[in-house]
Amino acid sequence: MNFSSKLIEDAVNEFSKLPGIGKKTALRLVLYLLKQEHELTKSLTEALNNLRSNIKYCNVCYNISDGEICSICSSKTRDTSTICVVEDMPDVLAIENTAQYNGLYHVLGGIISPLEGIGPGDLKIDSLIARATNHEVKEIILALSPTMEGDTTSFYLTKKLKELNIRISTIAKGVPIGGELEFTDEITLGRSILTRTLYNL
Amino acid sequence: MNFSSKLIEDAVNEFSKLPGIGKKTALRLVLYLLKQEHELTKSLTEALNNLRSNIKYCNVCYNISDGEICSICSSKTRDTSTICVVEDMPDVLAIENTAQYNGLYHVLGGIISPLEGIGPGDLKIDSLIARATNHEVKEIILALSPTMEGDTTSFYLTKKLKELNIRISTIAKGVPIGGELEFTDEITLGRSILTRTLYNL
Repeated sequence: MNFSSKLIEDAVNEFSKLPGIGKKTALRLVLYLLKQEHELTKSLTEALNNLRSNIKYCNVCYNISDGEICSICSSKTRDTSTICVVEDMPDVLAIENTAQYNGLYHVLGGIISPLEGIGPGDLKIDSLIARATNHEVKEIILALSPTMEGDTTSFYLTKKLKELNIRISTIAKGVPIGGELEFTDEITLGRSILTRTLYNL
Repeated sequence: MNFSSKLIEDAVNEFSKLPGIGKKTALRLVLYLLKQEHELTKSLTEALNNLRSNIKYCNVCYNISDGEICSICSSKTRDTSTICVVEDMPDVLAIENTAQYNGLYHVLGGIISPLEGIGPGDLKIDSLIARATNHEVKEIILALSPTMEGDTTSFYLTKKLKELNIRISTIAKGVPIGGELEFTDEITLGRSILTRTLYNL
């Protein structure tokens, strides 16, 4: 595209470096910013620069944090005997939004993926084992995606953690609630039959 | 959503003020920026601030421009006897990309829309008439969207321009090239029969 304006071209090029934003969407965003008050561009760019310059990672769980210790790790009302292991920060958000979990987290910062060259050494595994060695910790919940890489990582972690003699669990996998049985893929359905749970009558 | 980080929350809120970007997409963009080098955030915000602070509108055609006169109006190779009237800057881009037009433009900055409270006085119509009064101008092409508002604006402009005794034309409307006749809506198809063009045999 020929924008006949270097300023527009630069802004479009920068926007389209973001994931899921092509040249056309970028142009739409740029033109929108031009039509709005100057204030909108100012507050957007300030928030982004602030974020990128000041964001920290929690020294305990490696979740994204405004301070040295994140608000979950420093909370007095959380159950410190349970650690939920997740791949990345959006998983923490997703679990927090269920309001069904009150323990702590440990953010690995990725999962083992030989294809992408990510090995156990690239993840926050040593610090997880150090935390798990703490006498207070009674259970570790592995909440990784049920994919090849997620399962590999879970398997690696269970092997590393089992000698510590603490409870290791993983999130339940099966037919999604509200989903239609007939449209569930056969692997999920097959597994949900094999790992069926007993009714407590 | 509870982000447990004010910095993330601010950045997500700012991003989601842009059109077509919801909270989830905004979070994805924010996390992407965090994963990339600091440089990416810096160049994005600089390009946006630069754009918003330094962009100008061409004094002649009101297209977005880096200087006082845009590159099209100041070009020596363009045909200055034809002015193509469009609603906004993306329309200029779209027509330029066809490489089928070598005249000048006039950007109205909107179209007459009583529902949105936009009347003729809000558009760059007086300056269009001033340009059209110039003896050099031989034809005005109305290239507005074939919608109710676009047609109203075209009608208003033809009434204003006809006493100047110059050629006024409008872009052809009809079945899109490559489109299937049977799937064309009846209004377009009906109109394309009424305004059929003769084969020059």
